Amino acid sequence: MNTQPAAKLAMAEFEVRTHGRGFVDLGDSLRRALRESGLRDGMALVFTRHTSCSLLISENADPEVRADLERFFARLVPDGDPLFRHDAEGPDDMPAHVRAVLTGVSVSLPVRDGAYALGTWQGVYLWEHRAAPHTRKVSVTLTGC
Amino acid sequence: MNTQPAAKLAMAEFEVRTHGRGFVDLGDSLRRALRESGLRDGMALVFTRHTSCSLLISENADPEVRADLERFFARLVPDGDPLFRHDAEGPDDMPAHVRAVLTGVSVSLPVRDGAYALGTWQGVYLWEHRAAPHTRKVSVTLTGC
Amino acid sequence: MNTQPAAKLAMAEFEVRTHGRGFVDLGDSLRRALRESGLRDGMALVFTRHTSCSLLISENADPEVRADLERFFARLVPDGDPLFRHDAEGPDDMPAHVRAVLTGVSVSLPVRDGAYALGTWQGVYLWEHRAAPHTRKVSVTLTGC
Repeated sequence: MNTQPAAKLAMAEFEVRTHGRGFVDLGDSLRRALRESGLRDGMALVFTRHTSCSLLISENADPEVRADLERFFARLVPDGDPLFRHDAEGPDDMPAHVRAVLTGVSVSLPVRDGAYALGTWQGVYLWEHRAAPHTRKVSVTLTGC
Repeated sequence: MNTQPAAKLAMAEFEVRTHGRGFVDLGDSLRRALRESGLRDGMALVFTRHTSCSLLISENADPEVRADLERFFARLVPDGDPLFRHDAEGPDDMPAHVRAVLTGVSVSLPVRDGAYALGTWQGVYLWEHRAAPHTRKVSVTLTGC
Repeated sequence: MNTQPAAKLAMAEFEVRTHGRGFVDLGDSLRRALRESGLRDGMALVFTRHTSCSLLISENADPEVRADLERFFARLVPDGDPLFRHDAEGPDDMPAHVRAVLTGVSVSLPVRDGAYALGTWQGVYLWEHRAAPHTRKVSVTLTGC
């Protein structure tokens, strides 16, 4: 057990350009935010201000894992499903909301010794659920010392 | 990057009366907790002390989105599914636990300039998964400055 | 509303031995981390550094609830599903990643009066999604006072 004063709060924001459905690795942007904060230990809340994309932690070694995630969710929440009545923006509109609810719009990460204390195979991704490209806003809130 | 002392912890609790399955908007209760805390920047952990309701962030403009979420989850986790053996409290008992696991019992929110830094279309809801009305306890833990 | 200085950060780590697919109750390990921190009020981020197990909050009274969760996820994300191409480590490889994405690798818990402020029926579990036993790393980040 390591106990210290937790005197610091740091905040950053950045934008992510997506190319339609798929994953964007947030590693570089998140590391920059942590480096600029000067924070060494604590935690980070990463949050996206949208209801049709997600933030998630997933396997970062084999791109086929992310392709399989996409295939699985495409089958679980099919575009154009007649179950859905909210389709003003097209057949991918409501499925994008369902995917965002199933996977979440934030991740919380431990920080140790000036780095995110993730596993070797954990990457942090923004998952675009809409078919069209979008610009997505992401905020980082760091607390610690 | 904005760095400041994070000297403050604020805590609140409130109850939510549900009317059976469906969504309750927590916006007013959460804004009151933040206002009374005097906290301007940081983050909030919103947590509900139950295993058969959820907290989630979803689209807040078209009520049909929440109706579609309900329809989707009713199909994904059907009441009375013979797969389930835990049914002491009725056909909606185990489906409520599965829904709570799939969607989670907490949300973490960034705070900026005395407000929750959510997107325009993001609302925070308690989702009652049981068929009968319940009184649900929600806690808010705010850290920041 | 209860407002106080939030001057403290405490961090702990522990390992969990799993016996293949199934749930491990983290209550004792988490209570020990909190006790050793001396922290009374605030929040805890519990995080596991893997992409094929989850942390979750679920019903702690009837073990049949966890058996039903296992049955539900085994049906929702079947082992050996021909949809999946990432199967280097066997038929449970990709399903484990999907389950971890659906249920998450962290939980955030409120702390009040030196205890986790959970509901009576809420337990915190590590859910092993791989068929074989593993050693899993879990970190706890406590902020508060």
